[in-house]
Amino acid sequence: MENEKKNYNELSLDMHRELGGKLEIKSKVRLENKEDLSKAYTPGVAGVCLAISEDKSLDKVYTIKKNTIAVVSDGSAILGLGNLGASAAIPVMEGKAAILKEFAGVDAFPICIDSQDTEEIIKTIKNIAPVFGGINLEDISSPKCFEIEERLRNELSIPVMHDDQWGAATVTLTALINSLLLAEKNKEDVKVVLSGVGAAGVATGRMLLAYGIKNLILVDSKGVINNKRKENNELNKEKIELLDKSNIQDLTGELKDAIVGADVFIGLSKPDVLTKDMVRSMNQKPIIFALANPNPEISPAEAKEAGAFIIGTGRSDYPNQINNSLVFPGFWKGMLQSQNNGTYKKIDIDTFIRISDNLAKNTKDLSVDNILPSMFDKDVVKIVEDSVV
Amino acid sequence: MENEKKNYNELSLDMHRELGGKLEIKSKVRLENKEDLSKAYTPGVAGVCLAISEDKSLDKVYTIKKNTIAVVSDGSAILGLGNLGASAAIPVMEGKAAILKEFAGVDAFPICIDSQDTEEIIKTIKNIAPVFGGINLEDISSPKCFEIEERLRNELSIPVMHDDQWGAATVTLTALINSLLLAEKNKEDVKVVLSGVGAAGVATGRMLLAYGIKNLILVDSKGVINNKRKENNELNKEKIELLDKSNIQDLTGELKDAIVGADVFIGLSKPDVLTKDMVRSMNQKPIIFALANPNPEISPAEAKEAGAFIIGTGRSDYPNQINNSLVFPGFWKGMLQSQNNGTYKKIDIDTFIRISDNLAKNTKDLSVDNILPSMFDKDVVKIVEDSVV
Repeated sequence: MENEKKNYNELSLDMHRELGGKLEIKSKVRLENKEDLSKAYTPGVAGVCLAISEDKSLDKVYTIKKNTIAVVSDGSAILGLGNLGASAAIPVMEGKAAILKEFAGVDAFPICIDSQDTEEIIKTIKNIAPVFGGINLEDISSPKCFEIEERLRNELSIPVMHDDQWGAATVTLTALINSLLLAEKNKEDVKVVLSGVGAAGVATGRMLLAYGIKNLILVDSKGVINNKRKENNELNKEKIELLDKSNIQDLTGELKDAIVGADVFIGLSKPDVLTKDMVRSMNQKPIIFALANPNPEISPAEAKEAGAFIIGTGRSDYPNQINNSLVFPGFWKGMLQSQNNGTYKKIDIDTFIRISDNLAKNTKDLSVDNILPSMFDKDVVKIVEDSVV
Repeated sequence: MENEKKNYNELSLDMHRELGGKLEIKSKVRLENKEDLSKAYTPGVAGVCLAISEDKSLDKVYTIKKNTIAVVSDGSAILGLGNLGASAAIPVMEGKAAILKEFAGVDAFPICIDSQDTEEIIKTIKNIAPVFGGINLEDISSPKCFEIEERLRNELSIPVMHDDQWGAATVTLTALINSLLLAEKNKEDVKVVLSGVGAAGVATGRMLLAYGIKNLILVDSKGVINNKRKENNELNKEKIELLDKSNIQDLTGELKDAIVGADVFIGLSKPDVLTKDMVRSMNQKPIIFALANPNPEISPAEAKEAGAFIIGTGRSDYPNQINNSLVFPGFWKGMLQSQNNGTYKKIDIDTFIRISDNLAKNTKDLSVDNILPSMFDKDVVKIVEDSVV
């Protein structure tokens, strides 16, 4: 596994060196003579400027705002690598932009912000918003990512979505819906343990509760989230909010204590925190989503040995890859469309639950090794798009 | 002329509506299977992120920074239209980006800033700089444009150029060099009157002086720039700086007073300020650059009737179009190249004088109706590029 990873890193470095960046900005108009320039540029373009200055909503008709979003990061939480800063985030943001174009035809441009201060990030994004039809936040560390997303949703009129939260949570819920179906268990009855309460963990917790999971236990690096820790001021705002609707028995202890009798383990935390013994302590037909990247909370082989019924990871080299690439291309295609046709409503948690439901419903050849549609399935973008328009 | 203009506006509106923006962002990589994604995105991209975090200069090797600049405006001085705000600026910035790609192969993305405050503009541009190999400022009002450009040049390591200043000034100087050659006059002897001391006027004044024009008179909307106005605190910093090296006789009065006996009139001001009588009061073989857009300081027909030897305007429908499109595509191509090969030095006024000299020298079929190379001449980008590398 290490060798293979190294190999992809080398192949990727070669590819990036050869291309000098994965994106190019093309003109849709040829500029071969003065006539062409007079329409695309001066003097004709003055007519377009004046039209927009008279009716600002025409920016979505006459400019790239119609089909362009920003993919924005401050580089504070790049992949599983941590805080590497703005420049090191560029290749990931370019990758998202390439996926958006290739899968959904959405134009996306990477913006990497050279500040990690919440207020400056918010201000900068607001200042550059005019040219964009949406803001996809990416690889911004928790907990500031929550405030940044919430503030921007309130202060901008275009859709804003932090993909590490909602992309991850939506695909995880999709996987869970199908897994429960295969395990013949009900959302009202199952005990779900969620390990990792960062960006993806908080959004997943919120979605599980909104979807109707009644018995949810959250565990972070310091143990089970409970009232004693709240009283000791160990919990941030988001964890307190989640605690109010979870851990009904107010359990204490570690992951190994919480996992006993659980039906579902969802790991959005770090490598190797789940042991075979813990899996063996779970209820029958245990469902394991070990989503830490690139190394999961437990290897699929060990989980299998310990009796896991369904295993999902974030990796493309095992079955059941739980990856937000299934969601964000169609999401943004639909968001731009609903804005352009005037039906756009503010994003809320139901938006994402609808996507999960529709993706789960449309999974072909459902089996324990195939709990999700493939992102290469041509229908997927359309399913997600139709869920949000 | 009005009809024709209206017609271009209509054609331009149609074009923009049909295209929904003039740019698209394309992926240079196909993403058809998991293998493709593993190189362009996770897990392989992690290798590229780590490489950049260890050596930041590799951003110019592995990312779009290698060939991408930002075209930035706050919408405070759009074309000749005035302060229409950020959204109305988008079509112009897209047009510049289209020209950069079509003429020089440079990728450029429009950034329209929703603030007109100097400090906020500077901060925003600095915050989004990591992904860009250069910053082309555009349509930002005078005098704040001077501070914004100067501060960004000092505070960023990438090149920054306000095209309304330097593009305009460089092409104007090119036109002047060739016009003096045709009129058989020397730069040391001619009297030049420059009407309009905004962004383009200040830069043109600076370039004329640095080039070696000894007798320069500047005129703004309130009259000749002179010491009395300086004492009355009527002049901003840039006008005072220019006054120190111009108007050696400390003339007072209006344009009509300054123009008497002048060899050259350069208008970067507003329509119809130059009359036939004023042209008649100039020295023999008067050279008239009436560059107000879209309507010049004097119509070419009137200037001709009054005896102009050479007439240049900003318009594409007359001979001798003096337009910065001749400069900025090659300038940015060369700037990116010199940065990528490590020879980049800070931009100074000599950079632009070299461009003017080379463009003037390489004008084919020089005549009073052809004082500049055509931007459609395939050699032009290379001439400019080679001047700055």
